[in-house]
Amino acid sequence: MENGTPKAEKILTLESMNQNVRKLEYAVRGPIVTRAMELEKELQQGVKKPFTEVIRANIGDAHAMGQKPLTFLRQVTALCLYPEMLNDNKFPEDSKQKARRILQACSGQSSGAYSASQGIEVIRQDVAKFIERRDGGIPSNPDNIYLTTGASDGIVTIIKLLIAGQGKSRTGIMIPIPQYPLYSAAIAELDAVQVNYYLDEENFWALNIKELRQSLHEARKHCNPKVLCIINPGNPTGQVQSRKCIEDVIRFAAEENLFLMADEVYQDNVYAKDCAFHSFKKVLFEMGPKYSSTVELASFHSVSKGFMGECGFRGGYMEVINMDPVVKQQLTKLVSVRLCSPVPGQAMMGVIVNPPQPGDPSYNQFNSEKLAVLNNLAEKAQMTEKIFGQSPGIYCNPVQGAMYSFPRIEIPPKAVQEAKAQGLTPDMLFCIKLLEETGICVVPGSGFGQREGTYHFRMTILPPTEKLKTLLQKLTQFHEKFVKEYS
Amino acid sequence: MENGTPKAEKILTLESMNQNVRKLEYAVRGPIVTRAMELEKELQQGVKKPFTEVIRANIGDAHAMGQKPLTFLRQVTALCLYPEMLNDNKFPEDSKQKARRILQACSGQSSGAYSASQGIEVIRQDVAKFIERRDGGIPSNPDNIYLTTGASDGIVTIIKLLIAGQGKSRTGIMIPIPQYPLYSAAIAELDAVQVNYYLDEENFWALNIKELRQSLHEARKHCNPKVLCIINPGNPTGQVQSRKCIEDVIRFAAEENLFLMADEVYQDNVYAKDCAFHSFKKVLFEMGPKYSSTVELASFHSVSKGFMGECGFRGGYMEVINMDPVVKQQLTKLVSVRLCSPVPGQAMMGVIVNPPQPGDPSYNQFNSEKLAVLNNLAEKAQMTEKIFGQSPGIYCNPVQGAMYSFPRIEIPPKAVQEAKAQGLTPDMLFCIKLLEETGICVVPGSGFGQREGTYHFRMTILPPTEKLKTLLQKLTQFHEKFVKEYS
Repeated sequence: MENGTPKAEKILTLESMNQNVRKLEYAVRGPIVTRAMELEKELQQGVKKPFTEVIRANIGDAHAMGQKPLTFLRQVTALCLYPEMLNDNKFPEDSKQKARRILQACSGQSSGAYSASQGIEVIRQDVAKFIERRDGGIPSNPDNIYLTTGASDGIVTIIKLLIAGQGKSRTGIMIPIPQYPLYSAAIAELDAVQVNYYLDEENFWALNIKELRQSLHEARKHCNPKVLCIINPGNPTGQVQSRKCIEDVIRFAAEENLFLMADEVYQDNVYAKDCAFHSFKKVLFEMGPKYSSTVELASFHSVSKGFMGECGFRGGYMEVINMDPVVKQQLTKLVSVRLCSPVPGQAMMGVIVNPPQPGDPSYNQFNSEKLAVLNNLAEKAQMTEKIFGQSPGIYCNPVQGAMYSFPRIEIPPKAVQEAKAQGLTPDMLFCIKLLEETGICVVPGSGFGQREGTYHFRMTILPPTEKLKTLLQKLTQFHEKFVKEYS
Repeated sequence: MENGTPKAEKILTLESMNQNVRKLEYAVRGPIVTRAMELEKELQQGVKKPFTEVIRANIGDAHAMGQKPLTFLRQVTALCLYPEMLNDNKFPEDSKQKARRILQACSGQSSGAYSASQGIEVIRQDVAKFIERRDGGIPSNPDNIYLTTGASDGIVTIIKLLIAGQGKSRTGIMIPIPQYPLYSAAIAELDAVQVNYYLDEENFWALNIKELRQSLHEARKHCNPKVLCIINPGNPTGQVQSRKCIEDVIRFAAEENLFLMADEVYQDNVYAKDCAFHSFKKVLFEMGPKYSSTVELASFHSVSKGFMGECGFRGGYMEVINMDPVVKQQLTKLVSVRLCSPVPGQAMMGVIVNPPQPGDPSYNQFNSEKLAVLNNLAEKAQMTEKIFGQSPGIYCNPVQGAMYSFPRIEIPPKAVQEAKAQGLTPDMLFCIKLLEETGICVVPGSGFGQREGTYHFRMTILPPTEKLKTLLQKLTQFHEKFVKEYS
């Protein structure tokens, strides 16, 4: 190029780029979703298809599926953006009070100012009070709360802090299989070692301590496992952990010197009558000082799930327990490089943790809207379980919580062969054919992890009830046809 | 711990944590700012200080300094959050139209849904049209636009893509000195090699191609320099690059096979009469196909600076030019792991690139608010230059653009000695003493980089005019006293 002849090759190529980025995968928005978007465009352009609509059951995106936002949440956040409306009588008094309280805590009283890197202090205080109420009075310190850009941001930040070593001393991170692929993607990007522990499908996807121990001891031969990630309620499994299981996990983490990461973004999404959400923080503290003063824990929450479904705001928080104060300074420094999480998302989190109280003008409406969402989800969880339960060749655990079912499906050997010939996993072949024939978009189990030789897919229970019913019927019919075709 | 005795040491310690995170620094929110926050709390508690107020001139946070948000920007974004107000006659018709257009492009017509990972398509189209208008009709492809969580997010993402190799083949990233410390922090975190090129303080902080070449050739001895970062208008220098300089840089990048990153977040902030903003994209395309079809470029913009100052929204975009399509797929995959940038920030970006047009009901108000902000900033840039220009021992280049001055200050040898004794850099000693005595918070030059033996600080020009005047006077008086004290 010294003579000005254009260079033949790019600087940034598949070969020269960051190979950790190249190898990471994120199935929830992978090739099947790209294809779904193409099909949507083709439909818009009038191309004939065997369906009239693409239904995206690939991602936990409630509003995209028609769920309406809660009025109060939107009133307060809109007022934070446009305080001129604070004098408008169309807004109830409590929404204005909340907005004023948040704005007063913003620099220059503007949601357009950067917040402190850790998050707006008043909101962190409200988060701490929320946690205390949730956990029956166990104290929470606002200094341990970090407001994040969705839970994903917090999870990646903590993993980032924990990465160290080379070769056999490289940090190992234990994740459930099946998992939410943010974990495997972050681990790949940060070049850590992914240590799988399998959930017990025959036992409602419960976590099994024996399996955990076996996996840990195996991993110690080739890396330094330091972190144990838990997703409860489970994504994609929909499993809700029992209190006893959580105690066992905490005891295990304490014995084995593991840093605990508890992904609790579905804490409001528990549907099964015999299940309840127990936070790791609460169980840890109820196990007494031997544990509560030693076990290092980071837990995560989000505005995107629960009854809110406000994914677009990218709001969340994490609480860190027993973190070395000098490391906490390092954490604060790390998050300060990105300045702060989005203030509208912080405000949204602030309203969620500090909702209207009995006697407030918005109390009744808020609660009825919240209950309507949660009851509807519970109904759809049951319907999913029931329809899959009646379908031969499909085995589906109860959807105890979260927003997904993760059924195991029969895939005949001939289909497995065809998939191999096409360079696809068998469950990907199934999902592609399902999409092309019915417009239904679900994600192959291989994107979440599954035992060798078993096949699954993840679908959300978020489409409106009638649509979900049709979807489930079409899907099971398609599976029946698929099995016949390849038998 | 096998017997249940509590472990003595934490899992996550300064020693065991990610050492790249440990070594990174981010001066803009460093220890001096932590101390400023403590002082604010002490003042609130009634502790006596030689000042009544802490003035934070450490960060480009316009609203925190009292700048008011533009009415139209907030109307549209608030309407996107609370569409019930779309029928309210208090909002002008064009704000409603804009909000409707954005909402129609959201899944489920809700700003609470995830957007496509690359950003809402309609907004990316509007960004492309904005770039075309700005660049005199040079085409921009919406497929090359990525909406980001502030410009920082885009910059870190592109750096992340470019990291590869070990030892002498590790990616080197050329950054100006002084620089905005996001760059050094990202480079440290990602374990790349920072390659400094010094800006020419004697020549208004201009970029010098000779220096660039020398730095590159030196760096090639120990790493693989692949990326050249430019900040124009300059942060912290306030320098605005000439068209000729940009041409030279592009030619240099082409000759030397460097990927160009153009940080253009201050493109609306040009105050000097003889300066104008030229985008790298425009200059690249005007240099003809030899360059426009080969040079790889990513350029960045933000909602946080300009006349908007909407830092809290964390909105921005990047445009990638000549990126290998397969690498672009990898980029899209990488950003999909975080799902999407915050939708309120995307909406804000969408309004900024598609503002009211002549004849629209909001046109006059929008423009007068915009001009008022920009004129006020120009006035404050001049005032800063003038007051520093009259101060012995302070040497300050004209603030041609951006939002900062970066004056060089005399620090007497005795003060240098005292700083050493305290384990501080001399400019940090100056800034700490300034803060403790006057309440003025500015950032030491060492956080941005400076030639050995020279001392600077960065301060914003954002405080309200009268307050800025007082601040400048107090600061120069303090410096005079400081020099005397140590002489």
